Amino acid sequence: MRVITLAHGSGGRVNSDLISNIFFKHFQNDILMQQNDSSLLQKLNCSKIAVTTDSFVIRPLFFPGGDIGKLSICGTINDLAVSGAKPVYLTAAFIIEEGLNIDTLEKIVVSMAQTAKKANVNIIAGDTKVVERGKGDKIYINTTGIGIIEDDNRILSANNIKGGDIVIVSGTLGDHGICVINEREDLGISVDIKSDCSLLNILTQDILEVSENIKFMRDPTRGGLATTLNEIAELGKISMVINEKDIPIRDEVIGMCELLGFDPLYVANEGKLVVIASRDDAEKVLEAMKKNPLGRDSKIIGEVIDDNRNNVYLKTKIQGTRLLTMGEGELLPRIC
Amino acid sequence: MRVITLAHGSGGRVNSDLISNIFFKHFQNDILMQQNDSSLLQKLNCSKIAVTTDSFVIRPLFFPGGDIGKLSICGTINDLAVSGAKPVYLTAAFIIEEGLNIDTLEKIVVSMAQTAKKANVNIIAGDTKVVERGKGDKIYINTTGIGIIEDDNRILSANNIKGGDIVIVSGTLGDHGICVINEREDLGISVDIKSDCSLLNILTQDILEVSENIKFMRDPTRGGLATTLNEIAELGKISMVINEKDIPIRDEVIGMCELLGFDPLYVANEGKLVVIASRDDAEKVLEAMKKNPLGRDSKIIGEVIDDNRNNVYLKTKIQGTRLLTMGEGELLPRIC
Repeated sequence: MRVITLAHGSGGRVNSDLISNIFFKHFQNDILMQQNDSSLLQKLNCSKIAVTTDSFVIRPLFFPGGDIGKLSICGTINDLAVSGAKPVYLTAAFIIEEGLNIDTLEKIVVSMAQTAKKANVNIIAGDTKVVERGKGDKIYINTTGIGIIEDDNRILSANNIKGGDIVIVSGTLGDHGICVINEREDLGISVDIKSDCSLLNILTQDILEVSENIKFMRDPTRGGLATTLNEIAELGKISMVINEKDIPIRDEVIGMCELLGFDPLYVANEGKLVVIASRDDAEKVLEAMKKNPLGRDSKIIGEVIDDNRNNVYLKTKIQGTRLLTMGEGELLPRIC
Repeated sequence: MRVITLAHGSGGRVNSDLISNIFFKHFQNDILMQQNDSSLLQKLNCSKIAVTTDSFVIRPLFFPGGDIGKLSICGTINDLAVSGAKPVYLTAAFIIEEGLNIDTLEKIVVSMAQTAKKANVNIIAGDTKVVERGKGDKIYINTTGIGIIEDDNRILSANNIKGGDIVIVSGTLGDHGICVINEREDLGISVDIKSDCSLLNILTQDILEVSENIKFMRDPTRGGLATTLNEIAELGKISMVINEKDIPIRDEVIGMCELLGFDPLYVANEGKLVVIASRDDAEKVLEAMKKNPLGRDSKIIGEVIDDNRNNVYLKTKIQGTRLLTMGEGELLPRIC
């Protein structure tokens, strides 16, 4: 079994062989192959450039529906996509723990390469560091994404959100977090829940094409739907009323949440969107979302109200109303 | 003592308070404060865009002459600078081990903010992840840098290097690596060696301003001068003859290397340049470099020869010649 040693991160021949045999082999493109300290790009033809960075520390590395490699591409592409940007380039930096099986590394790198290809982006720069046994957890990956916004009129901002706007989610909530916790804790519960880890850039494009009145989009990852809605309320200085009965959640996820004591509204997703659209366009946006396989289960879950307390009110199934606060967030570490 | 807990990385209120109280407080700028999934930049006015990414895993976090925060800015700025680019934006992503003292985190963030300010760049996007005790080593930082090249004629490439070109280094070699190893191993040797960790973007600018015939620049970090010269020989498909007697190395570094069994030519630097210039311009380039405090000890150390074996030949002090190979690189892990 070939394993990563400290020499693989120390800048010499062994390091450079690893880069050639694993990273260049699978990520190959003209810009990366410049092999310079910086990669040079042609000037980007656009109105605005979008930039985002994310590190991925998920445990376990492989889970039903994905792996850390696929996630590291989807997560960053999705942050560009929800900003209305078209993803164009990614960088990838690896912090590897001494002793990692090189076949495992290659499997992760192949998954990254496949996902990047699907998103039509190139990985144009990279870095590899190796830390001693016990100073990491197999592998951590950082990706930084660069996207373009071609039309200034399509810049999404929470400031555009107004009372009466409609809140839509693109599908069932909590699948990613519950899948990962089930795998990780080896709960031995046989339940068919796959992570929703997906590229959202085509779905966001479909949404932007069908309506001029998309106010804001965000993917409810860490902290789940509840945290994302609270962030939007704070950024937009508005409040919202959400109807619990309309929030799509799989029965299996509800069951697991009851068993484990989690609230599915705080559980992470990696392939879902929250969309705020004008009331007039809401139905046609919903229809466009449902036509995309990733938005098949889209639902209108609530509306924005003019109320500067920046609250998220949940109308419960039994017709009560409670405040849906931002999570404290300590429940599920390392789900991304 | 306030310490980092898993909740600080889990996307809820505690996470968002950390971002406000530490990261936004010190990195504050209009683009970062958009607080969106992606940060939006104005279109970059340039001929080419330069992009580079680097993770920093150095141990110890603080050392004479710098700390992981300063290093994480200098390292990425320098990769842009040696490509002839003007650094304009950085992203910063943190992987923090549970239990890190928040005061230590803030000290590192302040050091990053000060160094970024000195380099005249803004940190425009970020990310924070927390891993359990024993799954990290206090803190790892990734920075990704974006720079601009205004003039297509100033694109540096190893392909431009020709026989007769001159090899210059900007000062003494090995200071960073030896300083860090001395601190880390607690050798108890009282020796006055500071890391050379510095921003090189003004020095590279000085060099490019004084000559139209700069062929290539690289900072000899991991793997040291020997590895960098070998990389240049391979990229440029040329060979070099280097004169050992002309390579500037402090007596203290030579002494420590003898004691520890290291070759200073393979020891990392974090504030030094290797410059390949045309023979005609070499003297004026050297003069310009010496005028900058960071290039005060610059020296011409050798020349390029037309020899497609891509070898680096070292003319030793006793007038022998030996091959200076690329390091195997296992000697000094985690010096950056």
